[in-house]
Amino acid sequence: MAPALELLEKSIEPLPTKAFPGTQNGVSAGGSPSLESQEKHQRVMNVFRAFIADLCQQYGEGHAGSPMGMTAIGIALYKYVMKYSPKNCNYFNRDRFVLSNGHACLWQYLFMHLVGVQSMTVDQLKSYHSSRLDSICPGHPEIEIDGVEVTTGPLGQGVASAVGLAMASKNLAATYNRPGHEVVNNMTWCTVGDACLQEGVGLEALSLAGHWKLNNLCVIFDNNSVTCDGTADVANTEDINMKMRATGFNVVDVYNGDTDVAAVVNALDAARSSDMPTFLNIRTVIGIGSTQAGTADVHGAALGVDEVARLKRSFGLDPNEFFYIPQDVYDFFRDIPGRGEAHEAGWKATLAKYREEYPELAAEFALRVAGEMPNDWTKCIPRKEEHPTASTASRKSAGVVTNALAQNINTFLVGTADLTPSCNVAYKNKVDFQSPELQTVCGLSGDYSGRYIHYGIREHAMCAISNGLAAFNKGTFIPMTSTYFVFHLYAAAAVRMAALQNLQQIHIATHDSIGVGENGPTHQPIAVAALYRAMPNVLYIRPCDAEEVAGAYIAAIQATETPTIISLSRQGLPQYPQCSSREGTLKGGYVFTEAEGGDFDVTLIGVGSEMGFAMQTRELLLKEHGIRARAVSFPCTRLFEQQSREYKQSVLKPRAGKPTVAIEAYPSNGWERYADASVSMNFFGKSLPSKETYEYFGFAPESITAKVKDLVEEVRRDGIGILRGDFRDLNGSLQIHLEH
Amino acid sequence: MAPALELLEKSIEPLPTKAFPGTQNGVSAGGSPSLESQEKHQRVMNVFRAFIADLCQQYGEGHAGSPMGMTAIGIALYKYVMKYSPKNCNYFNRDRFVLSNGHACLWQYLFMHLVGVQSMTVDQLKSYHSSRLDSICPGHPEIEIDGVEVTTGPLGQGVASAVGLAMASKNLAATYNRPGHEVVNNMTWCTVGDACLQEGVGLEALSLAGHWKLNNLCVIFDNNSVTCDGTADVANTEDINMKMRATGFNVVDVYNGDTDVAAVVNALDAARSSDMPTFLNIRTVIGIGSTQAGTADVHGAALGVDEVARLKRSFGLDPNEFFYIPQDVYDFFRDIPGRGEAHEAGWKATLAKYREEYPELAAEFALRVAGEMPNDWTKCIPRKEEHPTASTASRKSAGVVTNALAQNINTFLVGTADLTPSCNVAYKNKVDFQSPELQTVCGLSGDYSGRYIHYGIREHAMCAISNGLAAFNKGTFIPMTSTYFVFHLYAAAAVRMAALQNLQQIHIATHDSIGVGENGPTHQPIAVAALYRAMPNVLYIRPCDAEEVAGAYIAAIQATETPTIISLSRQGLPQYPQCSSREGTLKGGYVFTEAEGGDFDVTLIGVGSEMGFAMQTRELLLKEHGIRARAVSFPCTRLFEQQSREYKQSVLKPRAGKPTVAIEAYPSNGWERYADASVSMNFFGKSLPSKETYEYFGFAPESITAKVKDLVEEVRRDGIGILRGDFRDLNGSLQIHLEH
Repeated sequence: MAPALELLEKSIEPLPTKAFPGTQNGVSAGGSPSLESQEKHQRVMNVFRAFIADLCQQYGEGHAGSPMGMTAIGIALYKYVMKYSPKNCNYFNRDRFVLSNGHACLWQYLFMHLVGVQSMTVDQLKSYHSSRLDSICPGHPEIEIDGVEVTTGPLGQGVASAVGLAMASKNLAATYNRPGHEVVNNMTWCTVGDACLQEGVGLEALSLAGHWKLNNLCVIFDNNSVTCDGTADVANTEDINMKMRATGFNVVDVYNGDTDVAAVVNALDAARSSDMPTFLNIRTVIGIGSTQAGTADVHGAALGVDEVARLKRSFGLDPNEFFYIPQDVYDFFRDIPGRGEAHEAGWKATLAKYREEYPELAAEFALRVAGEMPNDWTKCIPRKEEHPTASTASRKSAGVVTNALAQNINTFLVGTADLTPSCNVAYKNKVDFQSPELQTVCGLSGDYSGRYIHYGIREHAMCAISNGLAAFNKGTFIPMTSTYFVFHLYAAAAVRMAALQNLQQIHIATHDSIGVGENGPTHQPIAVAALYRAMPNVLYIRPCDAEEVAGAYIAAIQATETPTIISLSRQGLPQYPQCSSREGTLKGGYVFTEAEGGDFDVTLIGVGSEMGFAMQTRELLLKEHGIRARAVSFPCTRLFEQQSREYKQSVLKPRAGKPTVAIEAYPSNGWERYADASVSMNFFGKSLPSKETYEYFGFAPESITAKVKDLVEEVRRDGIGILRGDFRDLNGSLQIHLEH
Repeated sequence: MAPALELLEKSIEPLPTKAFPGTQNGVSAGGSPSLESQEKHQRVMNVFRAFIADLCQQYGEGHAGSPMGMTAIGIALYKYVMKYSPKNCNYFNRDRFVLSNGHACLWQYLFMHLVGVQSMTVDQLKSYHSSRLDSICPGHPEIEIDGVEVTTGPLGQGVASAVGLAMASKNLAATYNRPGHEVVNNMTWCTVGDACLQEGVGLEALSLAGHWKLNNLCVIFDNNSVTCDGTADVANTEDINMKMRATGFNVVDVYNGDTDVAAVVNALDAARSSDMPTFLNIRTVIGIGSTQAGTADVHGAALGVDEVARLKRSFGLDPNEFFYIPQDVYDFFRDIPGRGEAHEAGWKATLAKYREEYPELAAEFALRVAGEMPNDWTKCIPRKEEHPTASTASRKSAGVVTNALAQNINTFLVGTADLTPSCNVAYKNKVDFQSPELQTVCGLSGDYSGRYIHYGIREHAMCAISNGLAAFNKGTFIPMTSTYFVFHLYAAAAVRMAALQNLQQIHIATHDSIGVGENGPTHQPIAVAALYRAMPNVLYIRPCDAEEVAGAYIAAIQATETPTIISLSRQGLPQYPQCSSREGTLKGGYVFTEAEGGDFDVTLIGVGSEMGFAMQTRELLLKEHGIRARAVSFPCTRLFEQQSREYKQSVLKPRAGKPTVAIEAYPSNGWERYADASVSMNFFGKSLPSKETYEYFGFAPESITAKVKDLVEEVRRDGIGILRGDFRDLNGSLQIHLEH
């Protein structure tokens, strides 16, 4: 026996499998079909595992170990427990399944094939790790594939998405179900490996699932005691069961999870009737059946030709038969498409009765199922004449819009990472999303129909859970999150997953720029914008006043396949009713104001809370130096990039000898595309009051004016434009000292 | 009583304070001085809390609540338990203290003043939230301030740094202590609020502290049951004590932590003799003494003029006396500087004896204390002629250097987020950093002298803990981390803290670019480089071959105030012994090869694993189209920016009509500074084998040649250069669909 395997056996406490009420003679009580014999299960497992070995052997690589170890779990889920319809994978009330240990994707692909997902052919299975462009078997599951709920791979993200999927069901059920009419009652199943229980984002999300008592969530731990570095003990010796109990989960052990299908079925069935989320700690052996079973060697590698042959022989299979699925194994799964159709038909019947009894609710529900918003959402966006004219923080302007949207449209789930008093997303008459049980336990208000979500101080989980909310059924929810912009760096890996999956979300990012002030350099979000401006399929929008805020919301709502970050100021901002426009905002950048008289000497680009500096500098330049400046507002570089070349040139007006200067309290990175120089923050900030922070770093009309004047004069003197590679950081840069 | 306060009282189990052996008559056994009377403590607490209230009232803002609630904890720590020397805050063997709830900084500043840290005057205390540029009382504690160990504020970072500080002590102690000679034996104390126990990075780090049995770490939970959103219950109802026990902590409750100094002292003292890390769950009342005590209203706000007056009266203080510290309160802390000097003198005496007994070890230790590396580290960097000439993955070239450095120099602590088989940082004869107890418990090898660290699948904690390792005493350690580059997005908030604190680290980031292949878009790190290139004080270096890898390590070791990310390929890369140079790498960008014959038509910028495409395109352009191309290698934009204008122009050679094209499989963002066009990835990747992924996205010499040829012809045809705002994304961009 391999040393790691010995350790594994030692670490398993010899407790009996927990017995559940209603479980008799191997037939489970939770509505699952009768169990077939263990002999039959073993046959299916052998064929399954040999097929996985063949798939990885094809190109001599891939993840074989976990799919082999998890085979019994898969049979329990796909054959007995999950309610789904392989002929219509997107049937609304289906159970959701998330493979949070996404590298085990072959497991999912092969089960999808066996249960009859039509696109998942043997030919497709063989495309894993191939160079085929039409493959639907990528190295990690992707949301675009029929039967895959969310893209997984980056560890911890899947389980957080699963929490979001379970929340989505809870919220819909609480909102639309009526006594005797359960139009939403699906479960969420999520497999995890060691990693998802080590990654912070997973731990944050699990803590919330426990708090919210999401009893429609079952987390299935493929506890094979092995990670890439060897035995999982090498970096983790905590008592996971105790930890999960402390976190509010119902914890169930299964000790022979790689062979005992009945035990797994019982445990899964019991999860359906738990009053808490369930954590199944299922002991398995990675790469079971191979001689390297139970070791890290079978984690991310093929077994080798000889070993695959040996394994098949030991399974009673022909070593010369490859990709072998005999008819009896297909037959084993033959009932599933029909059962799926029955689930769907049952749901439709429920829906029909519901429609009769509750026509208005049913109409709204139908809209939600269709992923559509009420057409009149535009009424929630204030008209230009409704904006205040006095100085207003853009977080306040945004609060007005969030309030109107969230009050009136159930599509919006609005959350905060413990910054309700700061982010202005709490809306009138909000109801908190909470377990109603907590009303008696600790006096909290709220229930599952609530759409205001207290995520606690868990920015990463907030955004990762939002991915699940948005993925439940596209358009049914538009999750909104809120925190300080700098903390979107904690959440970056989750926002990236949203962008990759084309999930619509609105992230309210307040306290942007150095204007946040006293909280100091830790809270002044230098460089975070550079990330989101570069990240594909993200709209990072920095509006400069209430009108641009309106435009930012319109863009965010219209971008149905895209997460949007609306970046907002803590401090008051001047309003520019004569210059700002929502239409301009939707184009990403636009002429804010031309120079007096038409001709100009310099173009100033202003962004967000720094637009005021551009406008004041423009005045000073004229008054004190006779320099004619035009101003461009640039709330969103990505939207601007989508405009025509002609439009872009009409905004930027590139002319030799007439430089363009961007003014933004972020690093200059990115402005080189549009400007010759910038007044930027190529260093970290400082703890001072807002205005003084700006002044300290040269963001004051007087200092900017002096620098722009010098630049204009230099360019005039030297003739033509500024050379490539000679971009001017007018505020300078941090120098890195290399010791010699 | 405020409702939140009632809840708080209800939630406290009525257990007695745990009694510790050797604790009698209020005098603790752990080497602390005798306790003064509770009456005296109450007097000091009253004065302290009133002073905090005055400080926040000054500017009508700031965080008053936690400092007031934590006053008794502070007295216990600063007066009785911590071993430190206020006259020499950096004395090497001092106990380390981390305020992970950094917003409570006034608490730390005021205690620093009271115990005699000379720079922390009353005048300085009053500068909190002022516009004074010379303030050493910023909104969150900063490492530059005498007496502050690490910068905190972004929640969860501090506690992870504390784990690093405790590891550093353990490693030094195991390496240098000898029986009867304890040259390192300090404790690490860390206060946390609810947030640090919710944030994923904190949870990851705590899990490791438990695993490693860091009994020199004591985490002090200021359990005031309140967060910004109100009662902490609103987002967290887990059983934190059970969770911490499951994580491997010794858990101790203190129930009257805002008044009972003796109880806190006992608990803290006991932590010194625990065989596990200690978690003190100390119940406090936020803003105690004020009428809003126990509510979120006192978290981040001043109390108001009238309320401050009322509070002072209730404390028996004169409401008209401001910033009042009477002599008896100073007297209470008067013994501390002397005790600090005694600690230091004791350590020096220990060191003197040690030097006699172990002169060689003592010499090495002295070098570590001085923060210096052996001079001969350069021998660990392979010479140019030692590189392989065949295609080699840069992760392998880097492995050679890491191996030599880590084998020979104790300064390097090398870690991995469970990617030992992939990242090539495991060095010959490595010893794992582990608790020696785990050898018997689960057969793990390693002990605390080990310098190879299995962080598990916890990228964020890996980097955040590394901040503590680097901050223990600058230069004593250079932490190295390793994971796939895409997962540095998980760790971004921690790397940012390293950059902000000027902490030297080397992050080995393998599997960069889309060349990672089959793992697919989740693992192909689009946009991560844009973040790190924009982040101040980070060196992001992408070497193209073994020689540039050597240069990258030299830069990383020479950058003693800077974290460096060395970005490496999974796949084999061609070697360019005729072109590549470490000297060029240190300049960030350099001429790789000029065009044949001297004059040129186009400049191609190649980076890292895409340099091969630039070189192959260069050949094809000449052969097939007679276009003469020069090639520039550009491993590090930040190092290049530090060069003179003349040098930069000599590399880029900007000429009208001779375009520059950057070739990199990342978004084009940033290349606009140096190029007119780029072959980039302005979209997410795809799961295909490495070469096919490149080809799919147009990274193949033939397709690049065609695009560059078109561009050169267009520029020739139209005359001069490419206009501002007209940068050419030769591979196109992802379009975001806005619904109308």
